[in-house]
Amino acid sequence: MMNKSRGRGRPPGRTETREQILAVARRRFLTEGYDRVTMRSIAAEAGVDAALISYHFGSKHGLFGAAMELPANPPQILAAVLPGPLEGLPERVVRAVLTVWDDPDRGGALRAFARAALVDDDVARLFREMAEREMIGRIAERLGGADASRRAAVAASQIAGLIFLRYVLCVEPLASMPTDELVAREVPALRAALAGAGTRPRDRRPRP
Amino acid sequence: MMNKSRGRGRPPGRTETREQILAVARRRFLTEGYDRVTMRSIAAEAGVDAALISYHFGSKHGLFGAAMELPANPPQILAAVLPGPLEGLPERVVRAVLTVWDDPDRGGALRAFARAALVDDDVARLFREMAEREMIGRIAERLGGADASRRAAVAASQIAGLIFLRYVLCVEPLASMPTDELVAREVPALRAALAGAGTRPRDRRPRP
Repeated sequence: MMNKSRGRGRPPGRTETREQILAVARRRFLTEGYDRVTMRSIAAEAGVDAALISYHFGSKHGLFGAAMELPANPPQILAAVLPGPLEGLPERVVRAVLTVWDDPDRGGALRAFARAALVDDDVARLFREMAEREMIGRIAERLGGADASRRAAVAASQIAGLIFLRYVLCVEPLASMPTDELVAREVPALRAALAGAGTRPRDRRPRP
Repeated sequence: MMNKSRGRGRPPGRTETREQILAVARRRFLTEGYDRVTMRSIAAEAGVDAALISYHFGSKHGLFGAAMELPANPPQILAAVLPGPLEGLPERVVRAVLTVWDDPDRGGALRAFARAALVDDDVARLFREMAEREMIGRIAERLGGADASRRAAVAASQIAGLIFLRYVLCVEPLASMPTDELVAREVPALRAALAGAGTRPRDRRPRP
């Protein structure tokens, strides 16, 4: 089953190898989930050296984005804005998200992936693991502190909600709101989520 | 085509009439969208008096929830928590959302509706119009002020993101976070969104 394309003994070309790696990766991500797939196991099945995967795709999340045919890879976008002062992190994240999703090509592909994650259980599991490990996990590392992953998760849910209402469901006035205004409105809320409320609810009175 | 069930001349019973109204309403909501459907036009097609629809379902959004077989109707849940001091609105909204979605029966039905809204264009349109008119619109009325609907929309997107990540995609640590902790973490962010940042971005410097 491996290396069918080498049937005539011709050594694989660069494009052919890349496509072969992607085909294996796509199938394994979808059947096994993001966490369990290793670069090494994909290399073995594709009959190539693991170093070649790193060469082509850089990292597991790079390979993931390529295998899912995402022209914009959410974990990579996040990785690009995590460095820099913490104070500016909310704005860097919101601007990066809006820039990618406002782009017709990249936004369209991401929209298709988001829809798939909501109806296909395999894609949902992939999305979940990617979100937990590569997004909430990375933001939490950058924040530090005992409840960092809980603060990061609430912030991530705000971004997810913005994406779903503005780009997937096209709810107004979010869908047509100018980028700068949206940044100005989202940043204070993200800042509040990232600052965290600890585990003390503001108000424990029973509901009226 | 109307009133097929009356074929033998028997006057419709209460249950029969109710089912008949729901069948008409469901089809028309899905084909025409939330905004264009009127209680009067459904009454006419179902061959009943419009007052009977009000009697059974209370309002257009009550009819909508029943027609979509939603055991918990988001606009009604919101309507129940809008009265009361503005200061406590974020907490009332978050608690109401969590209470309904944490309930296995009601949450399950809403989850199915949310998934449908993301793949079926007709359901998406219904969801969009309902969200704009019955949720963002109602919160905006309660808030008042020039940019009320924009502040309400950002707050609504936070709630939507919480729902999608916690209940639809089951992303941790949101999926298992205790209610009180989630309320404590969401409320400050919602408060910030509802307070609004005006239209002045905090920072207009070009991205690094």
